Amino acid sequence: YPIIVSLNTHLNRLYENNIGASGGDSSKESSRCSTPVLDADRSDRLRDKMRKRIESGDHWFSLEFFPPRTASGAVNLISRFDRMGSGGPLFIDITWHPAGDPGSDKETSSMMIASTAVNYCGLESILHLTCCNQSKEKITAYLNKAKHLGLKNIMALRGDPVGSEWEDEEGGFNYAIDLVKHIRSEFDDYFDICVAGYPTGHPEAETYEADILHLKEKVDAGADFVISQLFFRADTFLKFVNDCRAIGIKCPIVPGVFPVQGYQSLRQLAKLSKLEVPEEITRVIEPIKDNDAAIRNFGIHQAVEMCRLLLDSGIVPGLHFYTLNREVATMEVLRQLGLWNEDPRRPLPWAMSAHPKRKVEDVRPIFWASRPKSYIYRTQDWDDFPNGRWGNSSSPAFGELNDYYLFYLKSKSSKEALLQMWGEELMNEQSVYEIFTCYITAQSNPCGHKVLCLPWNDEPLAPETNLLKDELEKVNRRGVLTINSQPNINGKPSTDPIVGWGPPGGYVFQKAYLEFFTSSENVTALLKILKKYEPRVNYHIVNVNGRNWTNANDMQPNAVTWGIFPGREIVQPTVVDPVSFMYWKDEAFALWIEQWAKLYEDESPSRMIVKYIHDNYFLVNLVDNDFPLENCLWQVIDDMFELLINEESCK
Amino acid sequence: YPIIVSLNTHLNRLYENNIGASGGDSSKESSRCSTPVLDADRSDRLRDKMRKRIESGDHWFSLEFFPPRTASGAVNLISRFDRMGSGGPLFIDITWHPAGDPGSDKETSSMMIASTAVNYCGLESILHLTCCNQSKEKITAYLNKAKHLGLKNIMALRGDPVGSEWEDEEGGFNYAIDLVKHIRSEFDDYFDICVAGYPTGHPEAETYEADILHLKEKVDAGADFVISQLFFRADTFLKFVNDCRAIGIKCPIVPGVFPVQGYQSLRQLAKLSKLEVPEEITRVIEPIKDNDAAIRNFGIHQAVEMCRLLLDSGIVPGLHFYTLNREVATMEVLRQLGLWNEDPRRPLPWAMSAHPKRKVEDVRPIFWASRPKSYIYRTQDWDDFPNGRWGNSSSPAFGELNDYYLFYLKSKSSKEALLQMWGEELMNEQSVYEIFTCYITAQSNPCGHKVLCLPWNDEPLAPETNLLKDELEKVNRRGVLTINSQPNINGKPSTDPIVGWGPPGGYVFQKAYLEFFTSSENVTALLKILKKYEPRVNYHIVNVNGRNWTNANDMQPNAVTWGIFPGREIVQPTVVDPVSFMYWKDEAFALWIEQWAKLYEDESPSRMIVKYIHDNYFLVNLVDNDFPLENCLWQVIDDMFELLINEESCK
Repeated sequence: YPIIVSLNTHLNRLYENNIGASGGDSSKESSRCSTPVLDADRSDRLRDKMRKRIESGDHWFSLEFFPPRTASGAVNLISRFDRMGSGGPLFIDITWHPAGDPGSDKETSSMMIASTAVNYCGLESILHLTCCNQSKEKITAYLNKAKHLGLKNIMALRGDPVGSEWEDEEGGFNYAIDLVKHIRSEFDDYFDICVAGYPTGHPEAETYEADILHLKEKVDAGADFVISQLFFRADTFLKFVNDCRAIGIKCPIVPGVFPVQGYQSLRQLAKLSKLEVPEEITRVIEPIKDNDAAIRNFGIHQAVEMCRLLLDSGIVPGLHFYTLNREVATMEVLRQLGLWNEDPRRPLPWAMSAHPKRKVEDVRPIFWASRPKSYIYRTQDWDDFPNGRWGNSSSPAFGELNDYYLFYLKSKSSKEALLQMWGEELMNEQSVYEIFTCYITAQSNPCGHKVLCLPWNDEPLAPETNLLKDELEKVNRRGVLTINSQPNINGKPSTDPIVGWGPPGGYVFQKAYLEFFTSSENVTALLKILKKYEPRVNYHIVNVNGRNWTNANDMQPNAVTWGIFPGREIVQPTVVDPVSFMYWKDEAFALWIEQWAKLYEDESPSRMIVKYIHDNYFLVNLVDNDFPLENCLWQVIDDMFELLINEESCK
Repeated sequence: YPIIVSLNTHLNRLYENNIGASGGDSSKESSRCSTPVLDADRSDRLRDKMRKRIESGDHWFSLEFFPPRTASGAVNLISRFDRMGSGGPLFIDITWHPAGDPGSDKETSSMMIASTAVNYCGLESILHLTCCNQSKEKITAYLNKAKHLGLKNIMALRGDPVGSEWEDEEGGFNYAIDLVKHIRSEFDDYFDICVAGYPTGHPEAETYEADILHLKEKVDAGADFVISQLFFRADTFLKFVNDCRAIGIKCPIVPGVFPVQGYQSLRQLAKLSKLEVPEEITRVIEPIKDNDAAIRNFGIHQAVEMCRLLLDSGIVPGLHFYTLNREVATMEVLRQLGLWNEDPRRPLPWAMSAHPKRKVEDVRPIFWASRPKSYIYRTQDWDDFPNGRWGNSSSPAFGELNDYYLFYLKSKSSKEALLQMWGEELMNEQSVYEIFTCYITAQSNPCGHKVLCLPWNDEPLAPETNLLKDELEKVNRRGVLTINSQPNINGKPSTDPIVGWGPPGGYVFQKAYLEFFTSSENVTALLKILKKYEPRVNYHIVNVNGRNWTNANDMQPNAVTWGIFPGREIVQPTVVDPVSFMYWKDEAFALWIEQWAKLYEDESPSRMIVKYIHDNYFLVNLVDNDFPLENCLWQVIDDMFELLINEESCK
């Protein structure tokens, strides 16, 4: 079983590995086999993405978050990243909390949250960095670390004074411009740099005019774009942009939008920003200050109105939202503005990482379909990613999944919730079958709790898997414990809402796939049945000790998802790879113990039941190669059960 | 225009390039992107292929040829290789003609014929080599040259004495065994070595027993298998094999079969081999010696009877045929034995080369579909071959096609025949349209001659192209001069006799493709029409000077043929690659002049007409990306003509 090690081990490996790769761009050298560039934007840097959106007149939005205080807050924030990421932000940014050990390896640090957003959530991210009261060495070390974690964008800020008044420090960083210059001098053009703009002037600035001149200096020193401090009236921002343009600031200037979400938070933020809340707002909200819903509705309404004025002006290319780590208000504003992507197109059928090293990644084994973060974690040491094909499958060496408690792999549910879902007390193997069945049907277990996740799937059934729901229910009831499956697809449009992916105008295909745990008795019958299905069905069957049967070539991956697009090469993003399956097998079996058995007391009957399954069941995967015909895998399972019944009756 | 250089330039480049690659196995090192091993045999060496066939009990045949005397004989022999190669020989072998400058770069030399068989006809080949009267240095040089040309197998022979009696030469090679030892000492295990066995004992041997002991010595010295001298009775060979096994010769021993094809050739061969033709044969053929057909029929009958006895014995794994460079008798014997492959499966949709360097090659641009030998020639300098995808299409650098008279690129037809087919005198562009139309319809031209080839296609229409015959006829008549096309295919079985390729149980797909020359007036209309077909249709349009239009990504190839097979990755063997198209364009335009215009007198009207087309027409390729729908390319052409008519009537 995996040994539980501290998060630091993970971080250090990620860090060291990338130092070795010195910038992570080594994949560029890998000969002819380049990626088919499904998503041309994928390898663009943020400022280029922004420029293209401006040129095309396509408005964007971006989202600001602050690092959480607690580990469980981090788990929540990461699943918020996943949800809000689906709406299609151009980027997110993570604020720098000097008081929260922001550059450390703690799971709540600014650095680690930003790294998780990039590496595991696939989000283009900006890390804030404040420079006051920091040595140059310390700042350089932070930047090196950010670079090596795959971060490409920095919001360069001065930070707040320690006392109530600002005091210049000799030889230190006294202004954001010092940080901009430092980044450009130490890291050349590696980072995209963002700086803050103050639509009403920085509270400490002598005058508004002096402040925008200072902004011009920051831009001239190498900043790529500007995000504004919050403001309450569209006019304020539009005047600010015009004034900036008038003195020659040419880069994008993005308005920072703050939808009012509550009375207290508004007052607090206004105080921190040293802004005065205009009378037309206080007049409305003072009377409703105890009615949160009413204030939020007002905030949404007011933000939508202001955003419309901004976008209609023609000089605002996108909107930046101060979310305060909340979802509802911002999403609602974006929905009303039509900027929220209701039908997110998937460039590939799996969630991509945004680490620069992985920008050419376009094929993965199917096994980690429900655990993409685990796959990213276990392949973080790879120097380059198979592009176009899995290739020589002897090469991949997977990292150990040492730490099931890595925060981005943590279940969103507490131990108590898991026990409710998976049973406070298991009676026998049938109790386990029942849990699997309830997960598939989204129905309540005998104790009245919905089973919303399983150790192998932290989310409810995917819409695609739902297509197989009836058959899955039947077989799980009988002890074919499914953990992964996909239907066969014979050329559906790439824009299909359920199974589509990739650019429009294409066609996607799949071979039917089924992966399950089942007893050794079932496997004995299954092996006899599978002879009838040669060579149509490929299988791999393995137990926890590695005893295994297969009719597939040991080294040859089987492509199970592929797409044909106008003017492109074939893309085959998912494969059943025999070598990776042996690595996955260890992870899949370990989850029985680590996530399920350990919920129960040592030596308790419940734990022994789960352990019995772990020790004695087999993990099976089946591929029906004949994708244009009706999926035969259900027939295979039926035949297996029929054989078992016949053999039983012959005894 | 290409400059005509001597064949030596080609050979020297091939030679030098391979010295650089030192063994041609560099492709092994090329990272993850390995070939999907469609044909597992493809990278086996001959002795392994032979072993596998013996183990599976699958009888094989092989064919012996001698080098031709003349250049036109070489052209004929090479097209015979293509025809007889389709029947599925395990290998062919080329005899060594000491009198014919056998190791030279002449197009008729043993070395060059064997190299052509391997490189351009994709045939596993054995080069004979005789060692008597040769210095060790000379032999080593021959072997080095063979190695560098991609030859992997040597038949090690002593050769015939200069005078009538054999005289040992001190320090020289006196026996074949000396050559076997020399090859093994100088080239280790690089070559597979074959030696000759004499079923009735070598004519110069003291005794039959002494001779088979001598054969054992040759095998012990490193020979991999034995091919026997011809014989007339199955018993003779079966006894020989048993005697060889009795003294411990364990390697394969293959019978050399000679179907009697004529009275004179039989007598001559018997004399050369110092064999006596048995009485039961002379008795039959003496009375019919002037009736060639009767003798051949007898020879076929007698060979089939003998081969059946051999194969039925259970100790004969395959049959080697002394063809005397003729086709009919050997093919008929093989057909009657059921060994001739009537339905050759294509491992890939194009003809592979057998050069070891190209064993991973699995994708090519579609443009050279009818000129595979030209493609092989122009990519001979590539160090490794794109495997799995075309990849970064900026990299391929194509060799110049300097010499249209390279013997393996020569038209099979004489200048006279070409003039008859393409017209002794052209009246106008319409005359050219008519020739294209006659080629498509396989009908006679106005002078009564069938048009069996065009400069871009040296063979009649492929069966696949025949599927498009009616549409092709219509458009050629109107001046859309097609030189390459394929229908769309939406998942036909890989065993389909016309469009199938690859292993059984798979499905093959194609996007419809059409490539043609047409006038600039047509192109102007076509460009307007193509706007309606965005993004369904991708096009490239270019004239001889490189003026071009496209709606495709400059660097992104479009996969137009692909296959899905059980338990494998996707294979995409044919692409429309924008960069290669520019190289192909030069070749395609040059063929107007080099192969057609130059048939006519300088300044003659016929030459001027062809030159006008060359100078003014455009080369167009069209891909219909929507492969599941009905091919829209004919509609595109119809729309173009309709627009032209409407514009005309508006004037």
